[in-house]
Amino acid sequence: MAATEIQLDLPVDMHVHVRQPPMSSLIVPHLALGGIQTAYIMPNTIPPISNVSQCVEYLDQLESLLPPSSDVELIGTLYLSPTLTPAEVQRAAAVRHPKTGRLRIGGVKSYPRGVTTNSDGGIESYDVYDEVFAEMERQGLVLNLHGEVPSDEEKNITVLNAEASFLQHLHKLHAKFPKLRIVLEHATTAAAVEAVKQCGDTVGCSITPHHLQLIVDDWAGKPVNFCKPVAKTWDDRKALRDVIRSGHPRFFLGSDSAPHPFASKMPSAASHGDVQTAASCGCAAGVYTSPILIPLCATLLESFGALDRLEAYVSTNARSFYRLPVSQGSAKRILRREQTTVPSSFTLDAHKDKDDWARDKAQVVPFWAGKELPWKIIS
Amino acid sequence: MAATEIQLDLPVDMHVHVRQPPMSSLIVPHLALGGIQTAYIMPNTIPPISNVSQCVEYLDQLESLLPPSSDVELIGTLYLSPTLTPAEVQRAAAVRHPKTGRLRIGGVKSYPRGVTTNSDGGIESYDVYDEVFAEMERQGLVLNLHGEVPSDEEKNITVLNAEASFLQHLHKLHAKFPKLRIVLEHATTAAAVEAVKQCGDTVGCSITPHHLQLIVDDWAGKPVNFCKPVAKTWDDRKALRDVIRSGHPRFFLGSDSAPHPFASKMPSAASHGDVQTAASCGCAAGVYTSPILIPLCATLLESFGALDRLEAYVSTNARSFYRLPVSQGSAKRILRREQTTVPSSFTLDAHKDKDDWARDKAQVVPFWAGKELPWKIIS
Repeated sequence: MAATEIQLDLPVDMHVHVRQPPMSSLIVPHLALGGIQTAYIMPNTIPPISNVSQCVEYLDQLESLLPPSSDVELIGTLYLSPTLTPAEVQRAAAVRHPKTGRLRIGGVKSYPRGVTTNSDGGIESYDVYDEVFAEMERQGLVLNLHGEVPSDEEKNITVLNAEASFLQHLHKLHAKFPKLRIVLEHATTAAAVEAVKQCGDTVGCSITPHHLQLIVDDWAGKPVNFCKPVAKTWDDRKALRDVIRSGHPRFFLGSDSAPHPFASKMPSAASHGDVQTAASCGCAAGVYTSPILIPLCATLLESFGALDRLEAYVSTNARSFYRLPVSQGSAKRILRREQTTVPSSFTLDAHKDKDDWARDKAQVVPFWAGKELPWKIIS
Repeated sequence: MAATEIQLDLPVDMHVHVRQPPMSSLIVPHLALGGIQTAYIMPNTIPPISNVSQCVEYLDQLESLLPPSSDVELIGTLYLSPTLTPAEVQRAAAVRHPKTGRLRIGGVKSYPRGVTTNSDGGIESYDVYDEVFAEMERQGLVLNLHGEVPSDEEKNITVLNAEASFLQHLHKLHAKFPKLRIVLEHATTAAAVEAVKQCGDTVGCSITPHHLQLIVDDWAGKPVNFCKPVAKTWDDRKALRDVIRSGHPRFFLGSDSAPHPFASKMPSAASHGDVQTAASCGCAAGVYTSPILIPLCATLLESFGALDRLEAYVSTNARSFYRLPVSQGSAKRILRREQTTVPSSFTLDAHKDKDDWARDKAQVVPFWAGKELPWKIIS
């Protein structure tokens, strides 16, 4: 008999992009809409969040966008770059939320240069960060890795094997800093799953819901499904599904939900009739799942027989790895089996009455737009 | 010292899509514009060209679109489907051009079901075609293979290994019909190049210019570079370049030039502000190279040190394999080193003054739109 209601320890999304104004005012309220209680906020803003004062200011700004009734908590991250010092790591680890007293900055995110959105300031080599990583290890900050190397003709590296080619760096970092908690973000390959399993208890791995669904065929010619790392093969998808179904405690939800204005996702909308611009522009990489996140996760896990692992995937595994408090008392998210349609788009209020062109720049199309989801959040 | 002028035996394009009215009236004159003298026309029209009378009618219609001064000759093909009989193969082989007396139908094209544009009527198994292939072998018609199998979760087949997974069929067909001339169309992988090399002299292979340039990274999020088979890795591209540079006589130009209206290449143009339609539509697969074909080939081959193989690639290898007459007397194509800019788009005359939306449906964006080509056709 299929379940009709599910109670979950309050969900956490350990990898999410909420952007900056005005986009952030549309996106931040979607965290609660999608069922998330704790959101781990990525620092690849423009400019990136590279020090403690920027991070606190950014978190204050984002928290002001939360609905008053919201139970959502935000955890900030810093962007790894040569300006980050061990002293700044100490300062980051000491920041407490003025109201809750909880840790406010959870980790440091590393982007290899040029491989994804706003990663031009990303790292080229990890060797120069030994002292920073050693201090993070002492202070208990997490290192979050975008695990891809740049494409390289000599080494035959493309978007297809960029992740597998990165895994040697994960192993090296883990060997050098065995007590440093490291998260390989948005794993997409069987090789990555295997690598994380082989590491010790200080290495975790986030898996997005869209990578539990998509393969390469789904983004071939479909910009709405194009993201980085790109979705790979059936066997890779099976490895991601299998590790979630196994309930392995170091694999958990990080949605990598990334809102891109429709105009940047679909260049011909931005170009407004200029075919040359449209043809030469690339489509932005990213899939937007925040407003439907937990119902989507329930739907996907049920589709491959892992609904009993939903709480582990969306809450308890990450809470344990990140040392986050479990739900206070009886607080739970409750899902009921009830069909809802994924909205076709979300538009900033201030742009709703504007013309097509202006609206395209303030409009975000979610993953599975227009599809039915069989699960709905009821509290 | 770099060459400043090149004389070529008249070029042939052994794989080209010129579509139907009204698109064909824009496209057919581009064959001459791109430097082609003989064009081998694909039959995946709507409906497909599946018998001799359809093919002759189609060729007549296309020839009426050739400029009066043009030296372009067209060779037709039939679409392989269960309606094709050995008797129809005999009829096809007997068709002569009313003016030149030359063979008018060169071969039969096989599309695996559902893998590319207008392939819904494609084949599922070759076994039922034994008698047709035997008759083609006797009559000297060529079998042109779109060498991909459909994606398959059980077998872990995606767009990435669809070609490599097809090669067993090429070997089987060649073993069964050793005198049947077979062309593996638009090879994209090192595996395909190796497979063709291993076959005997009756197996040839077309290679598109865009696959001599693109890799998977180039179509990740860039609909203008998305085609089937998809471009693969650096090593695959190197294998294609190497075999052209080696001058291997059974590898030759088949552009697979495929004009798609801008609106179908860029769904947001077609959807005209409807983001849900735009997001859910796929982009049409195909790269359009006809109007710049020979200058593009010269540019690419020069870029990887194979300009001395240009004539073999664009003319003599295919003429020999297909038993086409070599240039009559002193007729040559002459290229001069002179920069020209690739037009940003080509638009049907009747649609030039229409609004953005109507124009998008009658407008084709060529490969390398807006880029400079260092070679120009001067006669």
